[in-house]
Amino acid sequence: MRYDEMSREERQQELETLKKEYRKMQALDLHLNMSRGKPCQEQLDLSMGMMDVLSSGSDLTCEDGTDCRNYGQLTGIEEARVLLGDMMENNPNDIIIYGNSSLNVMYDAVSRAYTHGILGNTPWCKLEKVKFLCPVPGYDRHFAITEYFGIEMIPVPMNNHGPEMAIVEKMVAEDEAIKGIWCVPKYSNPSGISYSDETVRRFARLKPAAKDFRIFWDNAYGMHHLYDDRQDYLIEILAECKRAGNPDLVYKFASTSKITFPGSGIAALATSPNNMEDIKKQLKHQTIGHDKVNQLRHVRFFGDIHGMVEHMRKHADILRPKFELVENTMEQELGDKGIGSWSTPLGGYFIGFESLPGCAKEIVARCKKAGVTMTPAGATWPYGRDPQDTSIRIAPTFPSLHDLEAASRLFCLCVKIVSLEKMLKEN
Amino acid sequence: MRYDEMSREERQQELETLKKEYRKMQALDLHLNMSRGKPCQEQLDLSMGMMDVLSSGSDLTCEDGTDCRNYGQLTGIEEARVLLGDMMENNPNDIIIYGNSSLNVMYDAVSRAYTHGILGNTPWCKLEKVKFLCPVPGYDRHFAITEYFGIEMIPVPMNNHGPEMAIVEKMVAEDEAIKGIWCVPKYSNPSGISYSDETVRRFARLKPAAKDFRIFWDNAYGMHHLYDDRQDYLIEILAECKRAGNPDLVYKFASTSKITFPGSGIAALATSPNNMEDIKKQLKHQTIGHDKVNQLRHVRFFGDIHGMVEHMRKHADILRPKFELVENTMEQELGDKGIGSWSTPLGGYFIGFESLPGCAKEIVARCKKAGVTMTPAGATWPYGRDPQDTSIRIAPTFPSLHDLEAASRLFCLCVKIVSLEKMLKEN
Repeated sequence: MRYDEMSREERQQELETLKKEYRKMQALDLHLNMSRGKPCQEQLDLSMGMMDVLSSGSDLTCEDGTDCRNYGQLTGIEEARVLLGDMMENNPNDIIIYGNSSLNVMYDAVSRAYTHGILGNTPWCKLEKVKFLCPVPGYDRHFAITEYFGIEMIPVPMNNHGPEMAIVEKMVAEDEAIKGIWCVPKYSNPSGISYSDETVRRFARLKPAAKDFRIFWDNAYGMHHLYDDRQDYLIEILAECKRAGNPDLVYKFASTSKITFPGSGIAALATSPNNMEDIKKQLKHQTIGHDKVNQLRHVRFFGDIHGMVEHMRKHADILRPKFELVENTMEQELGDKGIGSWSTPLGGYFIGFESLPGCAKEIVARCKKAGVTMTPAGATWPYGRDPQDTSIRIAPTFPSLHDLEAASRLFCLCVKIVSLEKMLKEN
Repeated sequence: MRYDEMSREERQQELETLKKEYRKMQALDLHLNMSRGKPCQEQLDLSMGMMDVLSSGSDLTCEDGTDCRNYGQLTGIEEARVLLGDMMENNPNDIIIYGNSSLNVMYDAVSRAYTHGILGNTPWCKLEKVKFLCPVPGYDRHFAITEYFGIEMIPVPMNNHGPEMAIVEKMVAEDEAIKGIWCVPKYSNPSGISYSDETVRRFARLKPAAKDFRIFWDNAYGMHHLYDDRQDYLIEILAECKRAGNPDLVYKFASTSKITFPGSGIAALATSPNNMEDIKKQLKHQTIGHDKVNQLRHVRFFGDIHGMVEHMRKHADILRPKFELVENTMEQELGDKGIGSWSTPLGGYFIGFESLPGCAKEIVARCKKAGVTMTPAGATWPYGRDPQDTSIRIAPTFPSLHDLEAASRLFCLCVKIVSLEKMLKEN
């Protein structure tokens, strides 16, 4: 029964029952964490073979004769650019392999634009005002980078097809201070949705007032399907931009962080030849080259993209039951209550939950008091400010199935309690 | 016989003989490279055991329970901070372990000061003028970073004890625009000298006009002795700064690039707790953490600092004969000619050569024409401009002994030819 169809008395009675249940769960002394998009131990175990592919007897020489152990190869070894090219659906020549973190590559791209400007345009540090569009809910670490550089962040609402493109188009066309937009186009963080064909096409056809406007296209979950038979597809953005006559519009990021080991993977940037030349001018001062041995390790471990796809199916086998457990619990507990909605993504690392207005913070706080840590409410919005206080990110990957059951039951319980309390307060 | 004591005729005759020899060497069609400080293959082979220390059966858990395969540990795993602490002679708590390149850490330090300022001081990008002192001859990649950021570089002469401290002291005390100085304090690049105790003490007691002045102390060759019995010692700069009441004066850099594999090692920064907090404010936006698996690999490979010291002796055994060959060749060929001087360092990667004024570029060009690539003359000076045209960096590590013999003979030949030609032109 929907809570908004209950009488005041029914609500009060329901609340009392729920609170008893809550106190029972508190007594369990849980210490569970659904806050970060971290792979679980079983997932990490999948990549332990990485530790064996190179040995003291291995030849660490690339096909082109490069000794991976020594200095050189600013943009990464050819084999790694081919593998990540297949992964990212880009030409290996349009790819730079970086170090262990795509977040670092994104920071770097913002920092470089700030200190030196993009393709000859004024460095952002010399401008009065720089703004970024931030589709919401979005990824807190993206927002943290732009906030750190004093860039004004403007939220843009997301729908089930991606950001509201009419708003994006209008704003970038009218305001030269808008220099970028953060996107997680596939299995989005946190809502789990993927950008529709139309959304991608409209992105590629943006007419920004700023010549140095760039789409920061963080395709973190390109390979991260949960199902074999149902998968989201994304139009490849660099190719689409090229077709649209906007070849330089995008910086595209990806990494193997959630494919092999977080923090010990390889990250990459794909972009147009013009942007590439621009970036290399900086890169050559910043490093002599990234970790080629680790690049080679990845290439030898996967062999080719098919190897990586097979590997990702093993991840999916571990993650699918976790997503389904959370989704089923929510369906069971909240499905008929009318007090929240959530996504049922086909991949990625998150489930997005939307509570009744003004409830998210309180739900997360209640979870915490019973031993379940969620991502702080508001984190999915720039400056941590979710004006409606509705958005909660659920990260089901790290806990065990067993823990996840308790955690998601508790979560639903807290949603119910907080929603009822709010209804009772308002009527 | 000294060339300056020869008669014009003697010089002409000598030049003719030398040119014949040069043409003979040209006919050998050499392709040798003494330009970069790259380890040779034998040196790289020393670290192949690194590829075996972790296997699919390994437990990749740290002493403190951190799973190295997952996210986390912004400043590096404790074990790695202990090992690099021993290597750098610093408290592990004063160390941040970074990725694979100390050059990147230095770039980062300059970039952060440029975008956000140091300890609350005005970001350098907001200042009219920022200057760096550059002891010369010095490291071209240092100078490239400051040049890239539009920082004005002021050369300061080096003597056998380090930079001319009277000049350094005066300049930093008088000019608030001077924000830093590049130092390679031990087995300096390229001269090979180490800073004397007095030099280090005076560095620690600088009284810079700028509150955000920092010494960029690149201790790249701290462990890189050539001899067991004759080694340079360096007063530890952080400790000395603390004693002098200047705890925040230094950023100290090091890496294992020339200990294990260049480009696949681990880099580190050591600095005061104040600076550390300041840096962490940025670092947390820049990355979730560096490659912990590689940190663990290094720790397990060396065991402890004694293991690293033993490992460095093997490097020394390979490099010592190379340095001695070049030095002996120079002694033999140039020792009595009065046309140049060179260092005989006890460690590091380079021999510094000083030609007669106005000869360095021509010597390097002549070497090139006979198939031996040297570091471009002038590279050891800011903006590549060596006003006296005397400084040449010799990098003897990469070529085989056999190649090195030919290369150093050719080098000496070119020094003689160019010096004689110059003398003949001038008289």
